[in-house]
Amino acid sequence: MINVGVIGYGYWGPNIVRSLHGIEGVHLTSVCDKKTGAIEKVHKSYPDINFCRDYHDITRSSGIDAVAIATPVFTHFELAKDALLNEKHIFVEKPFTSNVKQAEELLDLADKKKLKIMVDHTFLFTGAVRKIKELVDKNALGDFLYYDSTRVNLGLFQHDINVIWDLVPHDLAIMDYIIKDKPVAISAKGVDHFGRGLEDVAYVTVYFEKNMIAHFNVNWLSPVKIRLTLIGGTKKMLVWNDVDADEKIKIYDKGVKVKGAEGIYKLLVDYRSGDMWAPRLDRSEALKIELELFVKHIKSNCPIINDGYSGLRIIEMLEATDKSLKKGGKVVKL
Amino acid sequence: MINVGVIGYGYWGPNIVRSLHGIEGVHLTSVCDKKTGAIEKVHKSYPDINFCRDYHDITRSSGIDAVAIATPVFTHFELAKDALLNEKHIFVEKPFTSNVKQAEELLDLADKKKLKIMVDHTFLFTGAVRKIKELVDKNALGDFLYYDSTRVNLGLFQHDINVIWDLVPHDLAIMDYIIKDKPVAISAKGVDHFGRGLEDVAYVTVYFEKNMIAHFNVNWLSPVKIRLTLIGGTKKMLVWNDVDADEKIKIYDKGVKVKGAEGIYKLLVDYRSGDMWAPRLDRSEALKIELELFVKHIKSNCPIINDGYSGLRIIEMLEATDKSLKKGGKVVKL
Amino acid sequence: MINVGVIGYGYWGPNIVRSLHGIEGVHLTSVCDKKTGAIEKVHKSYPDINFCRDYHDITRSSGIDAVAIATPVFTHFELAKDALLNEKHIFVEKPFTSNVKQAEELLDLADKKKLKIMVDHTFLFTGAVRKIKELVDKNALGDFLYYDSTRVNLGLFQHDINVIWDLVPHDLAIMDYIIKDKPVAISAKGVDHFGRGLEDVAYVTVYFEKNMIAHFNVNWLSPVKIRLTLIGGTKKMLVWNDVDADEKIKIYDKGVKVKGAEGIYKLLVDYRSGDMWAPRLDRSEALKIELELFVKHIKSNCPIINDGYSGLRIIEMLEATDKSLKKGGKVVKL
Amino acid sequence: MINVGVIGYGYWGPNIVRSLHGIEGVHLTSVCDKKTGAIEKVHKSYPDINFCRDYHDITRSSGIDAVAIATPVFTHFELAKDALLNEKHIFVEKPFTSNVKQAEELLDLADKKKLKIMVDHTFLFTGAVRKIKELVDKNALGDFLYYDSTRVNLGLFQHDINVIWDLVPHDLAIMDYIIKDKPVAISAKGVDHFGRGLEDVAYVTVYFEKNMIAHFNVNWLSPVKIRLTLIGGTKKMLVWNDVDADEKIKIYDKGVKVKGAEGIYKLLVDYRSGDMWAPRLDRSEALKIELELFVKHIKSNCPIINDGYSGLRIIEMLEATDKSLKKGGKVVKL
Repeated sequence: MINVGVIGYGYWGPNIVRSLHGIEGVHLTSVCDKKTGAIEKVHKSYPDINFCRDYHDITRSSGIDAVAIATPVFTHFELAKDALLNEKHIFVEKPFTSNVKQAEELLDLADKKKLKIMVDHTFLFTGAVRKIKELVDKNALGDFLYYDSTRVNLGLFQHDINVIWDLVPHDLAIMDYIIKDKPVAISAKGVDHFGRGLEDVAYVTVYFEKNMIAHFNVNWLSPVKIRLTLIGGTKKMLVWNDVDADEKIKIYDKGVKVKGAEGIYKLLVDYRSGDMWAPRLDRSEALKIELELFVKHIKSNCPIINDGYSGLRIIEMLEATDKSLKKGGKVVKL
Repeated sequence: MINVGVIGYGYWGPNIVRSLHGIEGVHLTSVCDKKTGAIEKVHKSYPDINFCRDYHDITRSSGIDAVAIATPVFTHFELAKDALLNEKHIFVEKPFTSNVKQAEELLDLADKKKLKIMVDHTFLFTGAVRKIKELVDKNALGDFLYYDSTRVNLGLFQHDINVIWDLVPHDLAIMDYIIKDKPVAISAKGVDHFGRGLEDVAYVTVYFEKNMIAHFNVNWLSPVKIRLTLIGGTKKMLVWNDVDADEKIKIYDKGVKVKGAEGIYKLLVDYRSGDMWAPRLDRSEALKIELELFVKHIKSNCPIINDGYSGLRIIEMLEATDKSLKKGGKVVKL
Repeated sequence: MINVGVIGYGYWGPNIVRSLHGIEGVHLTSVCDKKTGAIEKVHKSYPDINFCRDYHDITRSSGIDAVAIATPVFTHFELAKDALLNEKHIFVEKPFTSNVKQAEELLDLADKKKLKIMVDHTFLFTGAVRKIKELVDKNALGDFLYYDSTRVNLGLFQHDINVIWDLVPHDLAIMDYIIKDKPVAISAKGVDHFGRGLEDVAYVTVYFEKNMIAHFNVNWLSPVKIRLTLIGGTKKMLVWNDVDADEKIKIYDKGVKVKGAEGIYKLLVDYRSGDMWAPRLDRSEALKIELELFVKHIKSNCPIINDGYSGLRIIEMLEATDKSLKKGGKVVKL
Repeated sequence: MINVGVIGYGYWGPNIVRSLHGIEGVHLTSVCDKKTGAIEKVHKSYPDINFCRDYHDITRSSGIDAVAIATPVFTHFELAKDALLNEKHIFVEKPFTSNVKQAEELLDLADKKKLKIMVDHTFLFTGAVRKIKELVDKNALGDFLYYDSTRVNLGLFQHDINVIWDLVPHDLAIMDYIIKDKPVAISAKGVDHFGRGLEDVAYVTVYFEKNMIAHFNVNWLSPVKIRLTLIGGTKKMLVWNDVDADEKIKIYDKGVKVKGAEGIYKLLVDYRSGDMWAPRLDRSEALKIELELFVKHIKSNCPIINDGYSGLRIIEMLEATDKSLKKGGKVVKL
C-alpha cells in the first residue's frame, strides 16, 4: 500500500484525487488546499479523507510515501523540494517547474535520495497519443515532415504563467515522446492584451536539424475551441482532432512525390490520395493509467516516459520561448 | 465596349475567360497560351474567341483595350510592362509581381500613361469578406486583438513561388482592406522538403504597433483542406470557415474582461459568452463582381480597392518574408 | 427537510443520487438495488448513505417522504404503488408505466392520498428545450409545419422495452410541452432483428388535426450517434443538434411562400433565406433543476410540467404504437 | 457516330447537354425547349447546336438516333412514346413516367421496335454508390438490417410531382441496385402544407420479407440540407454523407451480437466497436459515365443497370406510395 497526499484542490486537483481514489494499492490519506471552500468540497465527496491547509502537514507527514502537487506553477519548486527532502516521491503537475535551474535541483535531489519524480503529462496516456506512438514505432507515417498544433479556446486565463507555459507543454511532451530527433532551436512570439506581462495569444516554432518543423498556435482568446494537430509524414499523414468525440485520429494515405523537374519551372509532382482510416482508440481514462504507473514505478521501478528528465527537457524549451519572446521572436538555440 | 485579351489559360485563366464572357460591355477578343492543348480547350468552349501563342499578339494588338494576365508570377512583370507600353489597362493575377522594384516600375508606367492597374485579389469580392468589411466599418468587432489564418491542403505545388507567395497574399490583401493600422514588421519561417528552394510549409507573423498580431499558417502538404480565419475583437469575435458551404461567417458575442488583480496571482477575469450569429452572405461570384468593377474602373474611373498600390503593399510584405526566411525567421521591419 | 430514498442503482440511478446529494433541503437517506456490486459502488461514493436490497425498506420506511424510482419499466407500477400506499411522493423514471391502466391507477391513488407524482422527463429541463419553449411561447417560429427527430446510436439495448419505449418518450414529452395542438393518431413500424419480440429499429409518425406531422426515427443499431431534431415553422425553422457541444440550437430565418399558381404546373414559390442565429443556452444540469423542482413541488405545491398526467399522455401514445406495430404499421387513433 | 437530340433545357437539361458535348462518338444535334430564354442560353454556350421549340423537330428528325428527355414528369410519356414511334432510343429523366401503365406501354413499344431505354438514375454512377455496390458484392457488410435515408433541404418545389416522386426515386433505384431481396410492401405518409395536392414533407417505409426495413425521410421545407444514408449490416455498418466533400462513405466495424438471455429480462448483448474506414472514391462525373454507357449500350448492346425495367420497378413503388398516401398511410402490398 502506497500512502499518498495531494496538495492543491483547485482545477486539476479534484481529478487527481478522484483517480487516486479508485486505484488498488493506494491509500489517499490527505488533501491540502489554502482556499476557502476546498475543505467543504473534499468532505462532501470524500468524507474519509483528511484535509489540511498547511502543505507541511503532507510533505512532512511520516505516514505518507508520495505527494501529488497540483498547485500553481510558481509554487511547484518549493513544494516538490520540501517533499523530496522529507523522503517523498513526487507527482508534479505540468509544467514541472518555473525554470531549468529548479528542475535540475529537484532532479539532483531525487537522484541523491533515490526518490521518484513523475511529471503529469496526462496527454501521453490518452488513447490518441498511444495510438500515434504505436504508428510511429512501426514507421507507419514515414519520416516526419511537420508537426502542427492548434490549441485555442476562450480562457482559462492562468494567473502566473502565459498561454505558452499553459498549453504548449502538452505538445512538447508529445513531441518529446514520439519524435527521436532533438529540437535544435525555438522561437516564440505573442501578445499580452491586458498588460499583465503574460501573453494570451502566442505562436511557437520548433526547429529540427532535418527538414522538419513544429509549430504551436495557442490562444486564450478564441471564440471556438480547437484542439487540432496535423502530423505530416512521408508515408502517411495524420490528423488528430481532440474535440471530435468519436474519430479523434484519422490517418490519410496521402502524399506528394516530387519527381524532379525538366528544367526550371517544370516541376513534376505526383499526388497520392488513398483511403482514410480512423482506428478505434482505447477510451480508458488517461490520468488513471498515468497514476497507476506512478504507483507501479514507485513499487517496482518500472520504466516511465514522463520522468523528471522528460519534464526538464520541456522546461528547457519553455525557458527558451521566454528568451525568444523577450527578444521579439528571435530564434533561440537549444 | 471594352475589348479584352487574356494571357494564360492554365489553372485560373479559364475562370477569368468564363467570367469576362458573361459581362455586359466586354468583348473578349483573344486568349493566349503557350501550352499544347490550351487551344483545343478554348475552341471547344468558346469557338468565337481568337487564340494565339505569342503574347505580343495581344499586348500589341490595336483592337484590344485591356489585358488580363493569368500566367506564372515570374512572367507578370514582362507581360504587364509590354501591355502598359502598348497602352493597355491591365488586370494581373496575384501576387502582382516578383518583387517591389517591378511593382513600382509598373505603377510609374501606368501613372505616366494614365492606364489602370487592377490586381486580382478575388477574395476581397466574396460575400464573406464583404460582410467582414461591413462589420468592421460599423465597429461591430471593436478593436482588433488578432487575425489568425490557416490555409492548408494537399498541393497545388507552384513551380516558381513558395507556399507563402501562393497563399498568404489572400490574407495580406484582406488585412490591408479591413485593418486601418499598418503592419510594422514581419517574420517568416518554413521548410522546403523537396530541395527545390521553395518552402512548402510556412508560418508568417505580422506585427502591428498596437497590441495586435496577425499570423498565417500555410501548407501544401496537409491531408485535409482547412481555410479557417479567426478574428478576435474587443467587442465580438469572428470565425470565417471558408470550407463550410452554408455558414462561412460566424460572429460570437464572446469576450474577456480582466478586472484587475487583487494582489499578484489573483487575476479577476470575466468571460462573456453570448449568442452566435451567422449572417446570410451574398453568393454572387466574386471574380465576376471584380471584373465588372475592372471594366467600370476603366470606363468611369470609379474607385477600386485592389489597385496597383494595394498590390504593391502586398509585394512589400511578401518581399520581407523572403528576407526573414533567408535569415532563419528574423523579424524584418517594414 | 425532505427525506428521499432511491430505488435502482443501475444506469440512471447513480445520476439521481448524485443530483439529490447536492440539493439543499434534501436528505438522501437510502439507496436500494438488488444487483451484486451496487452496494460497493454506493458505499465507495457515499459512505453516509444507507443501502438496502429490499425495496420495502424504502417504500415502507417511516423516515422517508419521497421515493425516486429508477428501475426497469416493468417494475415501475409495483414500486410506485407501494410507495404511494405508504404515503410517499414519487419521482418515476420515464416511461412512467408499462401501460395506460397502470398510469391511471397510480394517478387515482395519488389524487386520493394527495401525494405528488413527477415523471422524469429530464430533457424538458435542458437549456435546449427551455430555449425552444421560450421561442415557441413568443411565437418566434410561427405555426408548426413538422417536428422531425432522429435518435440513433449503437445500443444500449433495453431488456424489457423496445427502442420506441426507450427513445421516443423524450420527443413525445417535448412535443407535449411545446405544441398546444393535440395528436389525433399515431403509427409505428419497426423490426426486431434478434427475435426478442422487441423492435431495435423503428419509425413513429404522429398525426395532428392541422397540417402538422411529427416523425421519430429511433435505432439501436446505428454506427453513429445522431440526436437531431428539425422543427419547421411558418416564420422560422429550428435545428436542435444535441451532439454539438457548443451550438445545439440553431434558428434559421428561412421559409417558403407559395404565391399561388398561374394555371396548373406554374407554381410560384418564394424562398426566404436569411441569417442563422444560435442562442446561448443555459448549461445548468437538467436533472438537478428537475429534482429541485420536485422537492419544491412537494413543499409548496408549485406547478410542474411533468406531473403524472403528462406521464400518462406519453404512455397513451406509447401504448398506441404497440397497437400499430402489431397491425403492421396501421394508423391508430388516439 | 450517334446523333442525339435533347428535349428540355430547364434545371437538369443543361447538365445533360454539357455531358453529351464532351463524349466521343456523340454528335449533339439539337436542343428543344418551350421556355423563353432557353434559346439564348443554348446559343451563348453552344453556338453550333440547333435549337427548336417544337419537340417534334427532334422526335421526328431523320438525322437523330437518340433522344434525351429532361422535361417535367407529366410530359415524359408523350415525348418518349413519340420518340420510340419514330425509331429513336430514349434516355429519360427520373422518374421514368407518371404511372405504371405508361412505363409498361413504353417498354412494350421499345421491345417491339428493338429500341433502347435508359432511365436517368444518375446516383447509380457516382463513386459513392459504385463503392457501396462493390462492398455489397463482396459481402463486406453482411446481411442487410436496414436502409435509412434522409434527403431534406429547402426547395426546390416541383410543379407536377410531390416530394416523394422527386426525391425517393434516388434511394429506390439504389436499393433496387444493391439489394437482391425484393420489397413486398410500402407505406407513405406526408403533408401538403400549401393546398396544392402535393406533399412537401413525407416519410416512406419499404418492407421486405426478411427482417430488413428501408425508410426514406424527404422534405422540401428543411432549413438545412441533409443527404444522409445509414446502411446497417450484420458484419459492418455504412454511413453515406453526400454533403461531406471529402469523406462521403464511412464504413464502421461495429455491430451487435445478442448472445441469448439467461431468463427473461437478462439480455446478453455484445457490442463490437472497431475501426472506421473511409475509402477513396472515384470522382468522375456520374452523369458523363452514365451517358457514355447509354451510347455504348446503343452501339454494342452492353448490359446496363438502369434500363426501362429498372425504371418500371421504381414507378411501381412510387405508384404504391400514392395509394398509401390516399389511404392515410396504409401499408400497400407490391
